[in-house]
Formats: sequence, C-alpha cells, structure tokens
Amino acid sequence: MTLKIYADRMSQPSRAVIIFCKEMIHYTAPKEINPLRQVPAIVDGRFKLFESHAILRYLACAFPGVADHWYPADLFKRAKIESVLDWHHSNLRRGAASYVLHSTLAPALGLKKNPQAAAEGEKILSASLEQIESFWLKGNGRFLLGSFKPSIADLSLVCELMQLEVVDEKDRDRILGPHKKVKQWIEDTNQATRPHFDELHAILFKLKAKLQKQRLLEANNKIESGTKTLLPSKM
Amino acid sequence: MTLKIYADRMSQPSRAVIIFCKEMIHYTAPKEINPLRQVPAIVDGRFKLFESHAILRYLACAFPGVADHWYPADLFKRAKIESVLDWHHSNLRRGAASYVLHSTLAPALGLKKNPQAAAEGEKILSASLEQIESFWLKGNGRFLLGSFKPSIADLSLVCELMQLEVVDEKDRDRILGPHKKVKQWIEDTNQATRPHFDELHAILFKLKAKLQKQRLLEANNKIESGTKTLLPSKM
Repeated sequence: MTLKIYADRMSQPSRAVIIFCKEMIHYTAPKEINPLRQVPAIVDGRFKLFESHAILRYLACAFPGVADHWYPADLFKRAKIESVLDWHHSNLRRGAASYVLHSTLAPALGLKKNPQAAAEGEKILSASLEQIESFWLKGNGRFLLGSFKPSIADLSLVCELMQLEVVDEKDRDRILGPHKKVKQWIEDTNQATRPHFDELHAILFKLKAKLQKQRLLEANNKIESGTKTLLPSKM
Repeated sequence: MTLKIYADRMSQPSRAVIIFCKEMIHYTAPKEINPLRQVPAIVDGRFKLFESHAILRYLACAFPGVADHWYPADLFKRAKIESVLDWHHSNLRRGAASYVLHSTLAPALGLKKNPQAAAEGEKILSASLEQIESFWLKGNGRFLLGSFKPSIADLSLVCELMQLEVVDEKDRDRILGPHKKVKQWIEDTNQATRPHFDELHAILFKLKAKLQKQRLLEANNKIESGTKTLLPSKM
C-alpha cells in the first residue's frame, strides 16, 4: 500500500483521520516531514490531499470494504452527513478550538491567555453543544442524525470535543455538564472505535496530567505567597 | 417540481445556491417564511437540508442533466473540490465575512464598527487570497484546481468575494489589487453563470450605491464642520 498519512497527534482533525484509517485500513504512519505544511494530509500514490473532512470522505470511497454507515452512498443520508460536516466548521470547531486555545493552551504556545476571547469561544461552543444535544442527536439511534452506527461526522465532531479533556475540570464540567446526550455520544463513539480511539487520545491524557500538575503547583504557590503576606513574621 | 429554496439574497452562501439553481434548474423562489430559521435551506419533497455546501452537493447529484464539471463523479477530482470547500470555511469565509462586517456593515446592523476585529479579518482574508492566487488557481484552466469549467467550489468562493463590493473602494483596491488572477477568476465565474450571476448580485450593488452615498455625505459633513472651525466668522 502506498497511502501515507501526515498527521500531528496533537491536532483533533488529525486524530479523526488516523482513527478512521486504523478502523478501516491497516496503515503505518510515515516518519517523513509533511511536504504540504498542513496536517492532516495524505499522499495516496501520486494523489495528495488535505483538509480532514475531504480526507475522511476520500478514504471512505477509495478503499474497498469500508462499511456504508461511515459515509452512506444513499443521496439523502449522505446529504445530511454533509450538512453536519459543514456546520461543524463554523460552529463546534470554531467554538471549541478558540476556547481551548485562549483558556488553556496559550501559555504553552508562547501566547498570553485571553479571557475575553475564551469567553467568546465558550459562547459559540455552548450554543453548538446545545444544537448537537437538541437537534443533531435527535432520533432513535445513539449517533448523529439518529443513526445506529457512527459516520465520519460522529468521528470528526467527537474528536473535536475530546480536546476539552485538557481544560480545568470545573470549567469542563460547567460546559459539558448540561449535555447528557452529548456525553453519552462521546462514550458511544469511543466504544465503536476501540481500541483506536483511546490509543489516539493517549497524547491528550498525557497533556491533561501535565497541565493538572501545573495548576496544582500554581495553586500551592498562591497559597504560600498568600501565607507570606498574611503571616510575614513566621516566614 | 417540489423543490423550495429558502434564501436571503443578502447572504453570499444563499446567492451561490440560487445561482446554481438558476443555472441548473428552472425554479421559482417561494414566498413562505423559512421554517428552519437558517438560510440557505431547501425542502425537496419531504427532504429538508441546510448548509450551502451540502445543498450545492445535493443539487448537483439529485437532478438529472447537471454537467459533471460542477461536482465531478471522478473520485480524485471530487476529493480536490471537497478540499477547497472545506478550506473555505476556516479561511476565505472567516476572513471576508469578519472583515466586511466589522469594517462596513456593523452600523447598519446596530453594531459599532470594530477596527481591531476588521484588521484581524483582513489578515485572514489577505492570506486566503494569496493562497487562492498562488495555489488553488494554479494550472492551465481559468478556474480553481486548474479546471477549464467552474465547479460548485468556484461558485461558493466567488460569491463570498463579491461581498467586498460594499466596502470602501480604496480598501477594496488595497485588498484585491495585488491578486490579478483572483480578479480575472471572479470575472470568469461571472461570465460562466450569466445572466444569473449579475441578477443575484443586483441587491449588493444597490447596497454599494447606498453606502457610497452615505460615505460621501459623511465626508462632506466633515469638510463643512472643518470649515466651520477654521472660518467661523464666515458661517
């Protein structure tokens, strides 16, 4: 097989593509530097492609034996999945990526935290979660559009939401807490793509542990410096 | 025919959908209020759909006789078009919509102009134009991906750019000026979808004339009030 995947496990669209590949195709990730300077990207023989949704669609069509539920051939079912995938860009992705960057990841990337931008991101994120809960997850099935099996849209959107793992736990609970169906759907998508789902998100849980440790240290420092101010004679 | 299109001619994704319909299908726009509260949206019999890219894909597949170049059946050609359509959301659309809103349309919508947000929008817009000029418009043809005939991606992206018509002329020249291929491509897409392209953008040119008049009035008022200050004895 000549399929090469250029991906960064720290990016959620990359993780969606790799999980799908692992689910569908037995592939080995290459070690070369990505020539397209954007991840995820694939090179299949002489064919190059980027943008995660375009890659997911292509993989679902190009390889034999991919189960139809991932990207149904039926015109109407497929159109509804396209609608979710397009909606994702300006809603869930915009909200989640912006919130996680400005509330949590900024310092690690050499930027200052930006509470105003984080608040704006949270607003879009919460509205998106509400729309998933009350609209996209309507119906009998456990997956988007009332389906009984996951599609590439479930994979893309759930991978987007998984980045909330790195956020401070009380903020994550405030945002995800009101959305019981969303939380169950994340779990169901994980179950449906095991063990690849957990394997691909391991990098995220490592980062989560590191950030939790940092927050604990910062909190302890604050208490100590508070103690200094309150009880200077004893220090 | 039972196809109904719910659209707002003031929105560029709506215009892209209507132009495509007019190009492909003889339809009459309904007068009912859009039940989905989002435009554009379509109702085809019992099937409802929103998100302009999803609608464009659906229309290209659902109706007989739509020329293949709009949304090629070929796996590789189609995948490249998907890549442009997905890229559009987080790049050209994000930049253009934000720039035009914060630099020009805000007062008409009861908002204050926001020069910082406009500058951030312009940055994304200019980077997107550069990528269209040097990457997406590479090749022999006059259209995206070096094609000789337009696709639904040409229509979507050019409709996005047309909103720059309402911006102050010197700002528009500053932004579009360096991109000769982009300007020619807008003209070529217009030519390829005449007379529907001009007809659908008429509403934009009306708004442009109105805003130009306003700017002229504001400039005159400034000169007059300046004169007042300089020559109070003559007023």
